[in-house]
Amino acid sequence: MSSPPLDEFELIRRYFQREVFGAESGVVLGIGDDAAVLQVPPGHELIASVDALVAGRHFPDSTDPKSIGHRALAVNLSDLAAMGAQPKWATLALTMPEANADWLNEFSAGFMQLAEQHGVALVGGDTTRGPLTVSVQILGIAPQGSALRRSGARAGDLLAVSGTLGDSGAGLQFAMARPFDNTPAVQALVQRFDFPTPRVELGLAARGLASAAMDLSDGLAGDLPKLALASGLKAHVAVERLPISPELRAVASERQARDWALGAGDDYELLLALPPAHLTTLRAAAARLNLTLSIIGELSSGSGVHFTLNGARFAPEVFGYNHFG
Amino acid sequence: MSSPPLDEFELIRRYFQREVFGAESGVVLGIGDDAAVLQVPPGHELIASVDALVAGRHFPDSTDPKSIGHRALAVNLSDLAAMGAQPKWATLALTMPEANADWLNEFSAGFMQLAEQHGVALVGGDTTRGPLTVSVQILGIAPQGSALRRSGARAGDLLAVSGTLGDSGAGLQFAMARPFDNTPAVQALVQRFDFPTPRVELGLAARGLASAAMDLSDGLAGDLPKLALASGLKAHVAVERLPISPELRAVASERQARDWALGAGDDYELLLALPPAHLTTLRAAAARLNLTLSIIGELSSGSGVHFTLNGARFAPEVFGYNHFG
Repeated sequence: MSSPPLDEFELIRRYFQREVFGAESGVVLGIGDDAAVLQVPPGHELIASVDALVAGRHFPDSTDPKSIGHRALAVNLSDLAAMGAQPKWATLALTMPEANADWLNEFSAGFMQLAEQHGVALVGGDTTRGPLTVSVQILGIAPQGSALRRSGARAGDLLAVSGTLGDSGAGLQFAMARPFDNTPAVQALVQRFDFPTPRVELGLAARGLASAAMDLSDGLAGDLPKLALASGLKAHVAVERLPISPELRAVASERQARDWALGAGDDYELLLALPPAHLTTLRAAAARLNLTLSIIGELSSGSGVHFTLNGARFAPEVFGYNHFG
Repeated sequence: MSSPPLDEFELIRRYFQREVFGAESGVVLGIGDDAAVLQVPPGHELIASVDALVAGRHFPDSTDPKSIGHRALAVNLSDLAAMGAQPKWATLALTMPEANADWLNEFSAGFMQLAEQHGVALVGGDTTRGPLTVSVQILGIAPQGSALRRSGARAGDLLAVSGTLGDSGAGLQFAMARPFDNTPAVQALVQRFDFPTPRVELGLAARGLASAAMDLSDGLAGDLPKLALASGLKAHVAVERLPISPELRAVASERQARDWALGAGDDYELLLALPPAHLTTLRAAAARLNLTLSIIGELSSGSGVHFTLNGARFAPEVFGYNHFG
């Protein structure tokens, strides 16, 4: 060990405990007892999800610990964004080879900065020595009956995605080849991979407007079939409409950019099913968040996903990332 | 891989998805979307905890997968028991080297049998390939203001423990030396280690009677100082009063049994601070659960823990298990 041994309590206190926020945090009792005591406001439902990150599987072993801490919370916040839920609380199970103070400083900074940005209180933690694995459970709230599901879409709904797709896939390629070409475009793409931005505010804005939602964690080609299946509909996507960033265009061929946009995953943008009458309203809300909302297709009766490229049938060569595929 | 690849959804569905219980389960939307939607009943607080198990650290690598599944949930249920909370929901993040069908059958049987026994719905899951790590987040409820804390004890309270101590520590020793001596006593001790019983019903019964509670996961000598510190009191323990099972007496010297009872951990019994006026009532409730409640000492003003053995000052040679100590 490169630093003195730390007991679990001391470790959590030193790196992760923050002043509990005010009464509106809903935290009655935080870290330090057998469990936390939390208050869900009247008229609200509890929204819960879990996501684990494993070194070498979800991020390269060389990844900056600050990015790992950020990512571990971001992928969970993205799940709440997809439900239109307000994040409130998180618990963290951290397994690491050693209690290294420098590593923990960076990791906790990445985690806690994002937590504070979204008003999320860390209310439980467990640390163990072992291979690096980060498991985060996120808890949020939504007014009763308002949470967005994958299953709510209807025939005639538009398919919309936020932001741009494929940046993170490109960023990962560059990140794995560190030291990478230090152009602004490459830096921006690596930043998209290292510090994904969960679309929490857009998810909240989509409540009552979108009919279905999910987040794009495994790539559009892997994720969209799940929404279509859950809603019992057929999805039609015009691949030429996929939003590609100028940075991605600057470093990749059209075909490579398209493959990353369809299959690379880790974008953490929202995929929304949207009745056409709500497009203008949601687009305005997205604009206030400095986000674009691109219409990439629509839903009809039927099943499966039909991709076209400039009007011709198109078969994606890439498919969503599958941790056991 | 010794079995065909499984995608994550399919894997969770096949091994962990059960018919969602009735409306009283509080599950509005279970596994299969970006997050679960849950209902906390009016007038109740949400109680949340997380515990992770790592192979080779929390259990021997040779452990039966059914025991691992049971243990992963049991240690979390034990945290809720210590709060006097009613368990309701759990999420599971499972990292494993391969998607082996036999292993998953056993693991999920151990996990789900205990879940069903306590009416716990598994509402979220994440599976990844990697070193075996099992992280469970447990969610429960308690009427507002009723949750038991470590900090509520008062001077004059009795210190009580449920069941017997040290069995699990002995069981682990035998389990690590498999194949072990196949006597009924040894079998019973290994069973205590492999399949710990969380004292959920006793925790519920202690609500409104005990002034403070915690579960004994790291051994009395390691855990009691935390309760004393949280309550700002001094704990006095008469070591000869520690409840030792006939099975442990049958296989261990008095001194060895005492060491295990004080320091081995993994007992998952409850440690309670109890106003003397409530002893008879809680003991009767414990008896209805076929559990003994042993008075091992008391609390006074001051700080720290004072151990005696037959009246003489006693210094435990063993201390609680510390994952980074």
